[in-house]
Amino acid sequence: MTLDDLAARQRAFAEARDWGPFHTPKNLVMALTGEVGELTELFQWLTATEAARAADDPALRPKIEDELADVFLYLIRLADVLGVDLVAAANAKIDRNEHRFPPGVGGAALRKD
Amino acid sequence: MTLDDLAARQRAFAEARDWGPFHTPKNLVMALTGEVGELTELFQWLTATEAARAADDPALRPKIEDELADVFLYLIRLADVLGVDLVAAANAKIDRNEHRFPPGVGGAALRKD
Amino acid sequence: MTLDDLAARQRAFAEARDWGPFHTPKNLVMALTGEVGELTELFQWLTATEAARAADDPALRPKIEDELADVFLYLIRLADVLGVDLVAAANAKIDRNEHRFPPGVGGAALRKD
Amino acid sequence: MTLDDLAARQRAFAEARDWGPFHTPKNLVMALTGEVGELTELFQWLTATEAARAADDPALRPKIEDELADVFLYLIRLADVLGVDLVAAANAKIDRNEHRFPPGVGGAALRKD
Repeated sequence: MTLDDLAARQRAFAEARDWGPFHTPKNLVMALTGEVGELTELFQWLTATEAARAADDPALRPKIEDELADVFLYLIRLADVLGVDLVAAANAKIDRNEHRFPPGVGGAALRKD
Repeated sequence: MTLDDLAARQRAFAEARDWGPFHTPKNLVMALTGEVGELTELFQWLTATEAARAADDPALRPKIEDELADVFLYLIRLADVLGVDLVAAANAKIDRNEHRFPPGVGGAALRKD
Repeated sequence: MTLDDLAARQRAFAEARDWGPFHTPKNLVMALTGEVGELTELFQWLTATEAARAADDPALRPKIEDELADVFLYLIRLADVLGVDLVAAANAKIDRNEHRFPPGVGGAALRKD
Repeated sequence: MTLDDLAARQRAFAEARDWGPFHTPKNLVMALTGEVGELTELFQWLTATEAARAADDPALRPKIEDELADVFLYLIRLADVLGVDLVAAANAKIDRNEHRFPPGVGGAALRKD
């Protein structure tokens, strides 16, 4: 299943529930914020070591998958409403990043960005 | 290009720059927050009407594509580091939502969620 | 009651529950993200008109107060842990903004910021 | 200077620049998200140890103060627009938390919340 298929599945889902009028760009950006907040809450009190193993915890893993899915679904829906091709935009961004950050540049460059 | 290809491209990008140690779950969740913040800044002072047409604005469109790409890339990277299949998680979530929100349920159900 | 009193009240609260080790800057920044996400969820599906009257809705108002309080409390706690005087920092920022944005500058300047 | 003074200072600032129409609840919630995103970016690539000392770094400290101020100022402005007394709401929330989390409850309770 491609990203286009997922976007189409969500579009049909929203239409069948008359949610189109709610799915405006501002509202969807806010929904994305809400879901990133819920994802963050799963990790906020974990140590770095615990967080690195969080996906191995059978109680936590389904919650992580659920929140990652929510962020992903609102991101796809927002891009669909705006008419943006996420995969093309992502590849174009990595292309630009390959020029900004030459191989071997190390962590100092990441921190300065 | 599939999501797996994009994840592999980012993994190679991070490895070539020794960014692996920085790409921990907590750090990537925070990076996602930062990028959603930048995306939000593009829409925050627009009216609902202006926001609906934002992607038609030639000055704004490349910024929107850039920020959507950043959110998408950190989401893919986070899922990759956690070993979560985003497409499978998203489909499983829509499956559950189809039970929670029957067709025709309307906007009141969305708002109560 | 001043902001210092509130910071002291929260510090005592955290100490009495042995939460000090969890209240690191990274964790508190993440907690702030989580609470801003919850606040956002209260407004995301409202129209601009509905949102302007949200605090008059007897069912919604206590939720808004609760989420504003959560954001405020984590912000105070974070500033306290970092040793930053929020009121001084806020006044210094308005001072700078008075130079960046002369009176009468209008909304275009806000949007370009 | 009290929180009321700061709210009044910001109100006058917004009025003198005709920013009132932009300072709607939805827009201010989004502005808060943007500022929390910028604050998060200061901490995201730091280790826990580095983040704990971030405010001692002379290059980083003014940026931290600046971003904390931005979050604080939009929070105060949002509460003012909504007619919510932040200090009263925060004290009421700590009162409730004292019942939910008895002294000595420890970190497990925080994580379950």
